[in-house]
Amino acid sequence: MTAPRRVLVTGASGFIGRHALEPLLQRGLELHAVTSRDAPTQQAPRDVHWHQADLLDPGSHGALLTAVAPTDLLHLAWYAEHGSFWTSTENLRWIAATIALVHAFAEYGGRRAVLAGSCAEYRWGDPGPCLEGVTPLEPATLYGTAKNATRAVLAAAAGELGVELAWGRVFFLYGPGEAPGRLVASVIGSLLAGERALTSDGRQIRDFLHVADVAGAFAALLDSRVTGAVNIGSGEARPLRDVIDAIGAATGRADLLDVGALSPRPGDPAELVCDTTRLRTEVGFMPAITLDDGIERTVAWWRDQAGR
Amino acid sequence: MTAPRRVLVTGASGFIGRHALEPLLQRGLELHAVTSRDAPTQQAPRDVHWHQADLLDPGSHGALLTAVAPTDLLHLAWYAEHGSFWTSTENLRWIAATIALVHAFAEYGGRRAVLAGSCAEYRWGDPGPCLEGVTPLEPATLYGTAKNATRAVLAAAAGELGVELAWGRVFFLYGPGEAPGRLVASVIGSLLAGERALTSDGRQIRDFLHVADVAGAFAALLDSRVTGAVNIGSGEARPLRDVIDAIGAATGRADLLDVGALSPRPGDPAELVCDTTRLRTEVGFMPAITLDDGIERTVAWWRDQAGR
Repeated sequence: MTAPRRVLVTGASGFIGRHALEPLLQRGLELHAVTSRDAPTQQAPRDVHWHQADLLDPGSHGALLTAVAPTDLLHLAWYAEHGSFWTSTENLRWIAATIALVHAFAEYGGRRAVLAGSCAEYRWGDPGPCLEGVTPLEPATLYGTAKNATRAVLAAAAGELGVELAWGRVFFLYGPGEAPGRLVASVIGSLLAGERALTSDGRQIRDFLHVADVAGAFAALLDSRVTGAVNIGSGEARPLRDVIDAIGAATGRADLLDVGALSPRPGDPAELVCDTTRLRTEVGFMPAITLDDGIERTVAWWRDQAGR
Repeated sequence: MTAPRRVLVTGASGFIGRHALEPLLQRGLELHAVTSRDAPTQQAPRDVHWHQADLLDPGSHGALLTAVAPTDLLHLAWYAEHGSFWTSTENLRWIAATIALVHAFAEYGGRRAVLAGSCAEYRWGDPGPCLEGVTPLEPATLYGTAKNATRAVLAAAAGELGVELAWGRVFFLYGPGEAPGRLVASVIGSLLAGERALTSDGRQIRDFLHVADVAGAFAALLDSRVTGAVNIGSGEARPLRDVIDAIGAATGRADLLDVGALSPRPGDPAELVCDTTRLRTEVGFMPAITLDDGIERTVAWWRDQAGR
């Protein structure tokens, strides 16, 4: 009998983190969740050990790692404030905190670390799906630069640190718990409130994946021996219009959609999708939730929230 | 009359830093030098204000910046232990410390920051000189990856931080004060001691620049409005053999040279030289010390050290 793997999950009360606990538990892993806030009292699965720490203070890392003695690290925490995260200098603090955490994790005996990356690491504007190791890493934003720099440095240091390192590059995600200002949540919010929802023409091609599948992919990646960057997406290239229309259908208020009323954001690429061959064949993860089903579940969740 | 520019120089007691104080003073700048050691009591120019701080402790930055209130930052400090700096995880600590220092410098009102980069940021093995903005940035080492990541992140954040940022990419340097284990210092040391000096065949093509010229280039770069990466080198591509032979001539002990006795280090590129057009035309800096003259001065310095 081998000792159970003890997983330290950061950002455990964040958008992806909340959905990651259940699939990690299902894999038989001992879970230690870190949050900068109070430990959640409801909705979180049992059998999770909660720890409160401000990861931006590197002085907190030692005590946390001593308390948990993790074999594995799933680092999802990062500055993610909608609207400002692309350009905020908070990204600088998270680079330092992330590198320091992985460094300390290795020094305290950790073996395998999986971190959340982003499609923003890739050069935008090339046609076709982004492919790990092929599509150039030329981020257009401070956020993307920060993520890519963190990945490059940790990948280069992994051998010295003696840790296996994998990096899940998240594309577009949506689902229960999303920040209300983000696209899917905001269109749902408007329609459920009986207000018009103004959107761009929706011709942008994207890869959208339900957050539970994103979280499931991270759990599968952690529970594999795959190293390096792995795209996390559905593998389906869809116009944003499909997402908007699915929200119209799920809410029954397609009449409130004003598609084309807004211009696309400057700098937004026409196409940003991913090849998911590594995720499917090497990690062995297949998404379970279709776009229509995922939007329906998300609308149901928002309805439920509104009724509380 | 404008207020004098107050320059915070880190790594001021390091190899380049010691040589940078005089040329900075000559430009009429008010100098505040940081060292992790005791302030030097000899050989350092007057009119330099010395501060002791451990930059690896971000908690030290605020007090230092409050005390100095610098308008300019020349950040030369980094882990540079000969032999181990290429792969040491100390590089991770210096990424975090450097990013935090520039962030804090900006928050305390700093305006212009110049940092030391490295030829190790470039992809090695391409023929011809490395050119800023053209030669791919694909570091082969943890050190090069760390420097390149730090540069990329700070360049992407410079606008948000409100600082002008320049990055001097140092190629190969030598001169008084070099660590004894490094090539030029070690060959000089052997020959002055009357011992055989074993070297590789010396066919590697390199750009060697005397440390006083490297330091002068940093002073000129700081005192310019140039931003982005600037190669710091002589612009002369020379076989390493020329350096070895110059040491033989300057010491009068060419008979002790055993050229070809060692194999080149694995991974060492056949050619690693730089285009210095930016340094010459935009920064306006021209090296003053030829290779033969620089080696002679260096040998004289080592003779002087041995005679103390």
